[in-house]
Amino acid sequence: MLGRLNHVAIAVPDIAAASAVYRDTLGASVTAPQALPEHGVTVVFIDLGNTKIELLEPLGDSPIAAFLAKNPAGGMHHVCYEVDDIIAARDRLTAAGARVLGDGNPKIGAHGKPVLFLHPKDFMGTLVELEQA
Amino acid sequence: MLGRLNHVAIAVPDIAAASAVYRDTLGASVTAPQALPEHGVTVVFIDLGNTKIELLEPLGDSPIAAFLAKNPAGGMHHVCYEVDDIIAARDRLTAAGARVLGDGNPKIGAHGKPVLFLHPKDFMGTLVELEQA
Repeated sequence: MLGRLNHVAIAVPDIAAASAVYRDTLGASVTAPQALPEHGVTVVFIDLGNTKIELLEPLGDSPIAAFLAKNPAGGMHHVCYEVDDIIAARDRLTAAGARVLGDGNPKIGAHGKPVLFLHPKDFMGTLVELEQA
Repeated sequence: MLGRLNHVAIAVPDIAAASAVYRDTLGASVTAPQALPEHGVTVVFIDLGNTKIELLEPLGDSPIAAFLAKNPAGGMHHVCYEVDDIIAARDRLTAAGARVLGDGNPKIGAHGKPVLFLHPKDFMGTLVELEQA
């Protein structure tokens, strides 16, 4: 069921400063910041060739504000795995006892594709996003 | 400078239970556990096609014991980026003010290749491993 790693998301307090670290210090290819108010984040993508890093800065009423309150310097926020059929994946996971966050229905994510988030307590403390491939 | 994402490491308190979650619940391809006493971990690899997840359980005097003391359920521990020349990468990073952990010299990592770890405070709260590609 589990497909490719779509991205690793890193929450940061200052996306301009974080972009500079990845671009200038680490020598990576970094996109310009995109504000996604419907997701409560400003996002930057770092292309690693085989997958990508997403830097996330809170924007407005943000799902990552609580994370940054606990981790003011930032930190790894979630991993996103691709699945071929997100409804079949959800049904398999809930049948196995895993908890889907929210109302259990996929939402349209930052890439314009259906996504779900799974409860970190069911996945060894790691917040897992599933994205329809 | 920055190459592919070699892996995302997730520290777990019970690698057999964590392997079962990835294998049975998420339907991933999971290797048998390998004890690496020289690194203080037992490791399992999860092949995602484009990159991999490493599950790490402490073994003996382990570098991840302190992390699990703070995060008993487990959690994302580090990301590993590939670089073509780890000495050139280290020299560029230290010239930019980033701190390399330990004595600053590469050690042979779990894949038999030279690795370095960079201070999380210099990388937005994220522990970064560099591995010679």
